[in-house]
Amino acid sequence: MCHRMKSCITNAVSNFFFEYETPRQVLVRSKRVGVVCRLIQLGVLAYIIGWVFIYEKGYQSTDTAVSSVFTKMKGVGYTNVNGEERIWDEADYVFPVQGDSSFVVMTNYIITKEQKIGKCPEHPNSKNSCSSDSDCAAGGTERTGHGKMTGRCLMDSKTCEVLAWCPVEDDSNIPDPALLISAENYTLFIKNSVNFPLYKVRRSNLVEGINMQYIKSCLYDPEKDPLCPIFRLGDLVKMSGYNFSTIAREGGAIGIVIDWTCNLDYAESECCPTYTFHGLYGDAGEKDKARASVGYNFRYTQHYMEDSMEKRNLLKVFGIRFDIIVRSEARKFDIIPTLMAIGSGVGIFGVATVVCDVILLYLLPKRHFYSNMKFKVTELLEEVSLRLLCNVNTLQVFLFIQSKHKGATEAFL
Amino acid sequence: MCHRMKSCITNAVSNFFFEYETPRQVLVRSKRVGVVCRLIQLGVLAYIIGWVFIYEKGYQSTDTAVSSVFTKMKGVGYTNVNGEERIWDEADYVFPVQGDSSFVVMTNYIITKEQKIGKCPEHPNSKNSCSSDSDCAAGGTERTGHGKMTGRCLMDSKTCEVLAWCPVEDDSNIPDPALLISAENYTLFIKNSVNFPLYKVRRSNLVEGINMQYIKSCLYDPEKDPLCPIFRLGDLVKMSGYNFSTIAREGGAIGIVIDWTCNLDYAESECCPTYTFHGLYGDAGEKDKARASVGYNFRYTQHYMEDSMEKRNLLKVFGIRFDIIVRSEARKFDIIPTLMAIGSGVGIFGVATVVCDVILLYLLPKRHFYSNMKFKVTELLEEVSLRLLCNVNTLQVFLFIQSKHKGATEAFL
Amino acid sequence: MCHRMKSCITNAVSNFFFEYETPRQVLVRSKRVGVVCRLIQLGVLAYIIGWVFIYEKGYQSTDTAVSSVFTKMKGVGYTNVNGEERIWDEADYVFPVQGDSSFVVMTNYIITKEQKIGKCPEHPNSKNSCSSDSDCAAGGTERTGHGKMTGRCLMDSKTCEVLAWCPVEDDSNIPDPALLISAENYTLFIKNSVNFPLYKVRRSNLVEGINMQYIKSCLYDPEKDPLCPIFRLGDLVKMSGYNFSTIAREGGAIGIVIDWTCNLDYAESECCPTYTFHGLYGDAGEKDKARASVGYNFRYTQHYMEDSMEKRNLLKVFGIRFDIIVRSEARKFDIIPTLMAIGSGVGIFGVATVVCDVILLYLLPKRHFYSNMKFKVTELLEEVSLRLLCNVNTLQVFLFIQSKHKGATEAFL
Repeated sequence: MCHRMKSCITNAVSNFFFEYETPRQVLVRSKRVGVVCRLIQLGVLAYIIGWVFIYEKGYQSTDTAVSSVFTKMKGVGYTNVNGEERIWDEADYVFPVQGDSSFVVMTNYIITKEQKIGKCPEHPNSKNSCSSDSDCAAGGTERTGHGKMTGRCLMDSKTCEVLAWCPVEDDSNIPDPALLISAENYTLFIKNSVNFPLYKVRRSNLVEGINMQYIKSCLYDPEKDPLCPIFRLGDLVKMSGYNFSTIAREGGAIGIVIDWTCNLDYAESECCPTYTFHGLYGDAGEKDKARASVGYNFRYTQHYMEDSMEKRNLLKVFGIRFDIIVRSEARKFDIIPTLMAIGSGVGIFGVATVVCDVILLYLLPKRHFYSNMKFKVTELLEEVSLRLLCNVNTLQVFLFIQSKHKGATEAFL
Repeated sequence: MCHRMKSCITNAVSNFFFEYETPRQVLVRSKRVGVVCRLIQLGVLAYIIGWVFIYEKGYQSTDTAVSSVFTKMKGVGYTNVNGEERIWDEADYVFPVQGDSSFVVMTNYIITKEQKIGKCPEHPNSKNSCSSDSDCAAGGTERTGHGKMTGRCLMDSKTCEVLAWCPVEDDSNIPDPALLISAENYTLFIKNSVNFPLYKVRRSNLVEGINMQYIKSCLYDPEKDPLCPIFRLGDLVKMSGYNFSTIAREGGAIGIVIDWTCNLDYAESECCPTYTFHGLYGDAGEKDKARASVGYNFRYTQHYMEDSMEKRNLLKVFGIRFDIIVRSEARKFDIIPTLMAIGSGVGIFGVATVVCDVILLYLLPKRHFYSNMKFKVTELLEEVSLRLLCNVNTLQVFLFIQSKHKGATEAFL
Repeated sequence: MCHRMKSCITNAVSNFFFEYETPRQVLVRSKRVGVVCRLIQLGVLAYIIGWVFIYEKGYQSTDTAVSSVFTKMKGVGYTNVNGEERIWDEADYVFPVQGDSSFVVMTNYIITKEQKIGKCPEHPNSKNSCSSDSDCAAGGTERTGHGKMTGRCLMDSKTCEVLAWCPVEDDSNIPDPALLISAENYTLFIKNSVNFPLYKVRRSNLVEGINMQYIKSCLYDPEKDPLCPIFRLGDLVKMSGYNFSTIAREGGAIGIVIDWTCNLDYAESECCPTYTFHGLYGDAGEKDKARASVGYNFRYTQHYMEDSMEKRNLLKVFGIRFDIIVRSEARKFDIIPTLMAIGSGVGIFGVATVVCDVILLYLLPKRHFYSNMKFKVTELLEEVSLRLLCNVNTLQVFLFIQSKHKGATEAFL
């Protein structure tokens, strides 16, 4: 109908802009269906607003932090083994020394002094016993042995002779109580900084108000000083559910979780860490007691030269391993998840309508009536409609008027 | 109406497949409503296409990498303290030695040589002073002390006598300038590999073109050599916003962030790392200057035997701690998030219609007219419709014709 | 129309609750459109149910774990270098000693014994050669050199004299085969605990059935013992795709990935780890062979005092670096993602209708007919509707009846 391309496009565009489609709807005035449907819709609305928006904060985006942790132990330990007094400071009892987020504090040890390479009997235990040289394959090593077997079975100890760091360690008796039980009073200082790159927010666990003065005198307490970054070892162990004398003797592992769950829609200064403590490796729980491999220990050596010969002191170190784990989740209003949640909510609203339609069209007694109201069927029309229009005389005038003024009557229907 | 089950089901299935419902709509030709509604719809469309798809790349799924970092320092330091010359190589100044992603480079130190277990006066500072033996509780230790008090107050130093590694450390004067200021010229080599398990893509920071030849001669420069994995320490410090002589003297912490943000819809070889550097622990910023606990140091000992007695050299090490942090996010086209975004977008489109309907039905002057167009009300019908059909005579013929040719007239409306 | 405010509100509320809108729809009985549309809808349904729900488990929320790893090596190494026998135990060959998740097992080394600070010639290689003193800038250091140049060129070695730990290391010949090739038989014990905080589930890799008895005798095998936490080093290397004698000689890096992908809708005890092994740093792959910087090594020193002089043994350690990487993803039914997926699915269903409408209204021959069925246009009405109602006489009676019994006739249409 357009004579020129340009006016045609102009027409189409203006038509597009000045039009607007809205679905025609049946307004069903039925108490039963109405109440059911409204309740479903209100439920959906309550879910979207209450749960998605308020409880789960679906209008916010989230970011996890890049974090750094530095630790420092303070305190002095004292041991007196067979009259030999010794002082242990942090350079002696912390492994590694440089203040990592994962470190071990020595609380007990078995020392084997002045070991040197040589031949000596294997430690007598159930696995190493021998009755003749044939039990000791020369050149072999055992997985749990201390050296390379020379092939001789020593009669004194009833064990194979090995080439090893001699004398071999005897770790059958763990000192009880732990030698460094005084570790209970050591203190741990944690410095932690987090950086939320998405929101360009940087926080430190030394938050506002935690100044040099406060740090010098404070000690972490979950109630009174929840932000003090200085922790007493005994408290840490207790809060993790362990008994200090047990863990000090055999060693154990404790996780210190620093939780930065921040709502950055509020002031940045309200973004503060919380500390929680729990035993690791499943050793703390009741049901785990029967499990394999409790305790924590490792071996450590100090090498030295004496009389031009390399010697070493071997320490089997029992200790508490601390893993400082930073968990972070910052949330902030963001348009994308908001619209995502709204869009999804509108979709669920559609589900409510579907449920009500099922009730209306399949369950109610007057379902055929409602079905007729809702649906207009095109079935016969495909074949007959045009023919009808031509043939039926009695409808001609009426239809003519209607076709000219289409909609005029329907506005009343 | 179906006489047999089978034909009944066949009928239902064929009916279901040959039918199709589409909502009936009112096409409102109104300039005001049309323009408003189209603008809202275009806004939604622009948001979905422009923001969700193009800017946020909502059609892609994301994966974070499993990564490994290995570091190696190179360079030689030289100190001359009271005529004693000493050379420091990487085995001496890096802690730990094995090339971890988090390590410390020593830049300054206070050495306390030939300590042995014994009794000596505590270091005189404000906290340890005593005037009589009663100030020194025998057997006690102080949190910031060096040993176990013997109970005597020594008159020479005015401090308590302690059982400790003697002589005790005097760390009141930090060498200035830093003894190992030459650390500025050390170089750091970083080897980093990332593995995106979802896309089965493995990348190394030694990307295409970074070969042995290039590595031997290159030095990282943000402009000229942004992919060279060798960094000069002085440059690192500068790029983190620190002053080298300050950080070298008191220590500090620097984060090296390796950022792998890759769009794997492009070639894999375009997935390259970028390096950024920033101070950690909030020490660099202006506003943080007043905060507690600047600097970075730890204590480290070398034990040795002399005259059958265990001795040690204690080093208070000041250094720069480097944390290499790998951040990774690979994106690739994925059908799920694409459909998720489209589905959510259609939902938001529904919101546009709701807004327009509110305008149409509640704000426009002709709202009642439009309301009549949009809604068909079932109210009276529930009670009266059937009775009406039976009683009204004058409508009989007309309705008969209409019911036979249902839709024929309406096709014109 | 309401005479009192209260009854007015009551009316509105009861109206709202007893009403319900459902869209009026055209039921198009057309084989072509029906089949196309139903297929699209079935495709969408299959996608939502099959892909989103069953395959991607879109009805579940996910959580990643907080995890801790502890490792322990066992086994004894033996070297015989020039008749000097030596035994290496875990305290000697593991770095660091305390059982971290990232550690190095020494498999080869170059030892430079009894180094002390002094002046000696630089190691002769292509970079350090000199022909006269002018080639050796006094006081300078070279990036790859061992010390500080004194300014003299030594004629014997044709290299500059340096102040360094003397004698300087000669690492040009890497021992072949590796000195500690026996490392193949070492075993690695891994203890790993994961904690899914969202679901409050804690698991250890010592799962149900892995007790002390089993651990004592088992050895990891991907087929037979996939849950045994004890690994033979030779097996680990083989499963990573390396050749043991090569990696032992020059060093390398292996990632041990512990994968906790758990569906917590099932029993907790079915949440078990799987172990996978792969080479790191891109050294294993074929295409990476030409790349720079293969191998893994670091330098390590043992300091000691002899004749009141500090000396050290320098070890260039070649070893296998193990990085234990924990990947975790637990899934559990959650109402939020379920509704999110359904809502999004309903949105996509809407897309199906849009596609069918496009076919119906723009592509079919009878598009004008369908268009008339679907849309009711308000165009002319805005201007003419009211006038029409007043003027057209012949329609008066008919319209009067219709307006009184509105809907009665339409129910038949």
